[in-house]
Amino acid sequence: MTIDFLFAASTPGALSPGLLSLGQLFTSLITIYVASKAGGELALRLKQPAVLGELIAGLLVGTSGLHLIDPTQPVLLLLGQVGVTLLLFEIGLESDLRGLLKVGVQSLVVGTIGMILPGLLGYGVMKLAGATDLVAIFVGSSMTATSIGISAKVLSDLDYLRREEGQIILGAAIFDDILGVVVLSVVSGIAGGRSLEWVAVLRIIATSLGFLIGAIVIGNRFVPFFLKIVNILRTRGELLTASLVFAFMLSFVAEQVGSAAIIGAFAAGLVLAETDKRQDLEEQLRPVTDFFLPIFFIMVGAGVNLTLLADLHALGLALALSAVAVIGKLVCGYSVFGKSVNRLVIGAGMIPRGEVGLIFASVGLGAGVLVGVNHTAVVIMVILTTLIGPLILTRLLKHRNSLSV
Amino acid sequence: MTIDFLFAASTPGALSPGLLSLGQLFTSLITIYVASKAGGELALRLKQPAVLGELIAGLLVGTSGLHLIDPTQPVLLLLGQVGVTLLLFEIGLESDLRGLLKVGVQSLVVGTIGMILPGLLGYGVMKLAGATDLVAIFVGSSMTATSIGISAKVLSDLDYLRREEGQIILGAAIFDDILGVVVLSVVSGIAGGRSLEWVAVLRIIATSLGFLIGAIVIGNRFVPFFLKIVNILRTRGELLTASLVFAFMLSFVAEQVGSAAIIGAFAAGLVLAETDKRQDLEEQLRPVTDFFLPIFFIMVGAGVNLTLLADLHALGLALALSAVAVIGKLVCGYSVFGKSVNRLVIGAGMIPRGEVGLIFASVGLGAGVLVGVNHTAVVIMVILTTLIGPLILTRLLKHRNSLSV
Repeated sequence: MTIDFLFAASTPGALSPGLLSLGQLFTSLITIYVASKAGGELALRLKQPAVLGELIAGLLVGTSGLHLIDPTQPVLLLLGQVGVTLLLFEIGLESDLRGLLKVGVQSLVVGTIGMILPGLLGYGVMKLAGATDLVAIFVGSSMTATSIGISAKVLSDLDYLRREEGQIILGAAIFDDILGVVVLSVVSGIAGGRSLEWVAVLRIIATSLGFLIGAIVIGNRFVPFFLKIVNILRTRGELLTASLVFAFMLSFVAEQVGSAAIIGAFAAGLVLAETDKRQDLEEQLRPVTDFFLPIFFIMVGAGVNLTLLADLHALGLALALSAVAVIGKLVCGYSVFGKSVNRLVIGAGMIPRGEVGLIFASVGLGAGVLVGVNHTAVVIMVILTTLIGPLILTRLLKHRNSLSV
Repeated sequence: MTIDFLFAASTPGALSPGLLSLGQLFTSLITIYVASKAGGELALRLKQPAVLGELIAGLLVGTSGLHLIDPTQPVLLLLGQVGVTLLLFEIGLESDLRGLLKVGVQSLVVGTIGMILPGLLGYGVMKLAGATDLVAIFVGSSMTATSIGISAKVLSDLDYLRREEGQIILGAAIFDDILGVVVLSVVSGIAGGRSLEWVAVLRIIATSLGFLIGAIVIGNRFVPFFLKIVNILRTRGELLTASLVFAFMLSFVAEQVGSAAIIGAFAAGLVLAETDKRQDLEEQLRPVTDFFLPIFFIMVGAGVNLTLLADLHALGLALALSAVAVIGKLVCGYSVFGKSVNRLVIGAGMIPRGEVGLIFASVGLGAGVLVGVNHTAVVIMVILTTLIGPLILTRLLKHRNSLSV
């Protein structure tokens, strides 16, 4: 006599399609956590960023491997997106608007050139490959991202975060994070409207930037009220819960005004980053992100269909995109003027696309724009740049160190 | 041009029944968090346990109130059950097997009498009301629970946790937590088999106790291996993730061998409580529980149909059950022998049924045993005991303090 109905309230004998029982959720989470930790740890041992290992682990347990995880499972996709929202909230919380304004012009130029150049190169490659404008724009946009997490980690590991190159890379990466979500809104809007009208594009840029600025300005005015509430609350988890309500509200409003949920979460993070609760909140938010985020990375990897690469066209496309993705960012370092810095180091620090690139890929997949060969090529590009970026950066920094000794 | 398809991958235009879009999940979570915090804080201000306010808040936003939360939403129910699993994991982590063995016989006697007496009284009331054996057993069982969280909180608030009465209450409550999940397995098994065969009952008791003891013994042997793994890991969130894998694995195995998922989570907590990682893990687990647990409490409250109480039969049943629930626990304090303690205080400390009583109610609902009037009566009983218990305890302790001054 088994008691498989113990949680029968939500797991009746016949679940609607797409729903999970508690037992199924547990086995999925066990698979996801074991895979992501195994991949992440192995990557660290090979002196690579953990996220790279998690992606490849996802690949191994998903469509291209053991088929343990179904990349189309709706509840897991939903939980993964909660993870991305929390990640953007956290990135916002770790960002520093004033610091960015201080590093100033150099970061702005590097960030901008570092977005435009790879974007144009990616667009060009896709057009040469015969893609439609819409697809070419989406692929190009996915190449504009810079992963602040990965770059910052490599720089801090090698004690370069406080040098001039490190500061410029960090500023540019933060700037790319902000513009990246705007670009995401723009291309999502274009994909949704299925037309490329510049008026509409400008309207979305205006809406997204307007929302971001508005959310920060209004949010900052709301902060004293928020802090007052948090300080009044005496029940357990008061700071975390109040902050989640704030983040989810901005995410929801962002969606409603025609921007994107993740912009809202990012804005919420930027606003709360200015408070004295920042550190406490970061500490409490981290375990929650740790619960949800691996689901996203593993689901992304699980969705990659490597058999598509057997097609020489797809393989060529992935390699071509990866090549221009690296070149575009490397070159952007040379846009630094009036400073005696290692321009190649700066470019190398901008290479990894990381989680932001993956968000583009998954949004493109959801919108039906980035499918099959193109989707796989973009994910491979993200994986390769996330692998190659730290490799080149580490090599350049160690070479420089040995010269200066 | 809105970008409502930004997360289209998991939120296609037409969602399968029961699934949620990311936006719907956010609005549900905002409602749940705001309601649970408002209720919890108000309860604290009225010198009541927070969980009581959360339940009543759930009542206000659910079926009996504003209908903002659908208590049958499968994804929310699933996330709520993750919350209960994490809570039991946490309770296990906070429990202390050795401490329990030290307080020893007194706690054992109080805990046992405090389970049997209310159980029999509840069974009797239901039989008098004309219920079937199965329903009467389920209701009686739901009255055996003692909420360790609520009792401990009241005692520590009033600085009574380290006195003899406090120690006995705590030991008995921990013991009730362990036996409570066993009782839950037993009655769930009976409900599933739809027969009351004592051989089967004994088999389930043996299986549950066997699993619990086996999990603790084998788990304890596994602990050095677990700690070695955790110490080797260097990626972010290594302790939390490894612990969740351990807890989810035991939960899954518990279900597979014919016990209950929550027993597995509880056992995992007990095992990890013996390690030096206990405090770190508790700190990291807390925010994750804070994310999920309010969903459970609000969903429970939302499922209560107060209009059923318009039926005088239901109202009478709820009040009768509440009365014997209070009397049964109050009397059990008098089973303490050979100690000069305030026996009424001990009994009062055992009154609140709290979250464990709610788990019974929701399992009974899921198994189709505790429905309609009976389900509502049990939930009302849980709410009333959770309200009355701390009231009586506070009164008794303050009265005693004023006498001793």
